[in-house]
Amino acid sequence: MRQSKLFTKTRREAPSDEVAKNAQLLVRAGYIHKEMAGVYDFLPLGLLTLNKIINIIREEMNAIGGEEVFLSTLQDPEIWKKTGRWDDAAVDVWFKTRLKNNSELGLGNTHEEVLTALMTEHIASYKDLPRYVYQFQNKFRNETRAKSGIMRSREFIMKDLYSFSRDAASHNEFYERAASAYENVFKRAGIGDKTYRTFASGGSFSKYSHEYQTICAAGEDIIYIDKAKGLAINKEVYDDPEVYAVTGINKASLKEEKAIEVGNIFTLGTRFSEALGLSYKDAEGKMTPVFMGSYGIGPARLMGTIVELMSDEKGLVWPKSVAPFAVHLVSLGKDGDETSKIADALYADLVKARADVLYDDRDARPGEKFADSDLFGIPQRIVVGKDAVATGVFEVVDRMTGAVAKKSRAELFTL
Amino acid sequence: MRQSKLFTKTRREAPSDEVAKNAQLLVRAGYIHKEMAGVYDFLPLGLLTLNKIINIIREEMNAIGGEEVFLSTLQDPEIWKKTGRWDDAAVDVWFKTRLKNNSELGLGNTHEEVLTALMTEHIASYKDLPRYVYQFQNKFRNETRAKSGIMRSREFIMKDLYSFSRDAASHNEFYERAASAYENVFKRAGIGDKTYRTFASGGSFSKYSHEYQTICAAGEDIIYIDKAKGLAINKEVYDDPEVYAVTGINKASLKEEKAIEVGNIFTLGTRFSEALGLSYKDAEGKMTPVFMGSYGIGPARLMGTIVELMSDEKGLVWPKSVAPFAVHLVSLGKDGDETSKIADALYADLVKARADVLYDDRDARPGEKFADSDLFGIPQRIVVGKDAVATGVFEVVDRMTGAVAKKSRAELFTL
Repeated sequence: MRQSKLFTKTRREAPSDEVAKNAQLLVRAGYIHKEMAGVYDFLPLGLLTLNKIINIIREEMNAIGGEEVFLSTLQDPEIWKKTGRWDDAAVDVWFKTRLKNNSELGLGNTHEEVLTALMTEHIASYKDLPRYVYQFQNKFRNETRAKSGIMRSREFIMKDLYSFSRDAASHNEFYERAASAYENVFKRAGIGDKTYRTFASGGSFSKYSHEYQTICAAGEDIIYIDKAKGLAINKEVYDDPEVYAVTGINKASLKEEKAIEVGNIFTLGTRFSEALGLSYKDAEGKMTPVFMGSYGIGPARLMGTIVELMSDEKGLVWPKSVAPFAVHLVSLGKDGDETSKIADALYADLVKARADVLYDDRDARPGEKFADSDLFGIPQRIVVGKDAVATGVFEVVDRMTGAVAKKSRAELFTL
Repeated sequence: MRQSKLFTKTRREAPSDEVAKNAQLLVRAGYIHKEMAGVYDFLPLGLLTLNKIINIIREEMNAIGGEEVFLSTLQDPEIWKKTGRWDDAAVDVWFKTRLKNNSELGLGNTHEEVLTALMTEHIASYKDLPRYVYQFQNKFRNETRAKSGIMRSREFIMKDLYSFSRDAASHNEFYERAASAYENVFKRAGIGDKTYRTFASGGSFSKYSHEYQTICAAGEDIIYIDKAKGLAINKEVYDDPEVYAVTGINKASLKEEKAIEVGNIFTLGTRFSEALGLSYKDAEGKMTPVFMGSYGIGPARLMGTIVELMSDEKGLVWPKSVAPFAVHLVSLGKDGDETSKIADALYADLVKARADVLYDDRDARPGEKFADSDLFGIPQRIVVGKDAVATGVFEVVDRMTGAVAKKSRAELFTL
């Protein structure tokens, strides 16, 4: 893409009302726009990044047999009353609205209820199990405090997967496959080495659930990590002796860290299937409630976490897997001079070779171009200046390490 | 994809409360699920179809220079008050909700206001124009009547493009390019020959707007078509003599038809840019309001229109461009017999060749398989039965025409 066609402009200063580093940098770089506290728009570079994260997650969900759906935002109270989660006292993050006839509707903050009810039309026998169903859909949560940028917002995209199994044993087998898929996601998004499977409370559903927590100073959670085992324990179950018995972790060896919850996996058991009548006929003809699990990742929160972890004083820094573009081609040419002609030709050839490239073809000062390029955080920067024109050797700057490599024109096609 | 892994089941009967043919068939085929009147979920086959339509639209929007964004659903009243569109008396389809502090928010029913306000941060000079920005995002409209299935729903995916130009002349030039892109979309989606560019009222924005209307008995609109000119006139401006002067259409030659509005393009002029302060400095340094247009297509409505137009008594019928799969491979084998082994091997080879294929590998009666296949509406059906095994010649049934062709195994890879 030609940068002259990109409508967004960068800003030198962060908005004064934005306290989270992720939002400050993403707004400055023109990746997002703040509509109000906890509500953000995704602009072209931000949407490209978000979609790369979404596609990584989609591939991993498909690999474990997930089928993608898209459920509605508007929620019928009747379904939620069956599980006792319609009441604002039970779930305190509801946004509610009304039809013209004054009957109340909710905005989905999660989708266990509606999907469980829906599956009653499609699951009847043990032969129909297991099923794994997921979606990417906006969730709405009426947060009182929304100061963490895109890491905790009132409207946010969520990948939610739900599993429907015959029994606890087959559920557990899938639960571990889902856990592996989650680990793949975090590895591929570049935060694998800082992300720990973490024992947490199972809430009203089961004894424990698992969170994926990424160690980061901006985190809202406190976890205790066992680096050798690659496991952690959330503060809420830190004093529960049973968790040490289950995990074999030695409490004395734990290290306290701040962390961001980037995903969670839950055993739901039969709480929803019993309340909503999702049963199947087993091989002996006996009606049995379906055994369920749920598995969440917020792609925008993951994007915010990467910003918190990797950005530096010059701006954003993206791993190649999630960067809006893999390569930033920066021309120092002007007004159709020799340099800009060579940059134009190189851009055309890179596009032809299907390189994922943003081309700064603007008529601007080099200092401005480099500052914008650093702020954008695209992994590799190719500079086309007078030196490159004279020698045919191009400077390629690695955004993460700052390392400068000299490359021939042919080598630029294998970055 | 293996059909044994598809969680949705087909139904012989339509739900009794569903009056629209599109929703009846899509529910029966397991493409969608109804949450409540005017609110539908997209299930795997429905989402595949919807995404094929979305991708056609996306390609056409990118081809005319569109940049994709994703704007929020939650709306700040302050922005809407500036254009006088917050009041329920001015816009009667608002869904509204409240933050915990009791302040009111809206759910976006369109996005002119927020995008115009956003663009004030990115447009300052004539050099920043033109810009074309679009998104695919759910819209929420509090419809009193919601009986048209996915063609008029309370929550629906919308592609909305907004153009920002220096003046009316450059706007008009883009407006015609957008019109061509729209015509490409309808052609590619298989409804080009029944879709007419239609003169309609410009509302409060300009003298006329243009709708794209598809002739269909299920349509809610009345239009008057001039088949030779390929143009039409909406009932609302049918008695306006000026429209005949502008178009050169002879009123006497018009034919009345029922039609579905599948898209619209609007000249907005400076109504929003003036209200929200979106101006630019022209070449002479004078501040000038940006000249705007807006361009909408509802991908789900387009999907519903295709169903209304093309389906038959056996079920759905999709053009290849939007079908969830291009090919339905139906095995009549059982329990690992010779037939199912040959079907399995054929499926594996088709997948390897990247064919877009659904494989009915279920252990079910042939009659049930054929009925489901007809209901699904996938363009080509390959049958693997005893005859094919004995002769190596496969029957391929064209869903739209019913024509049966005999094909060798090699020919199946070029369907």
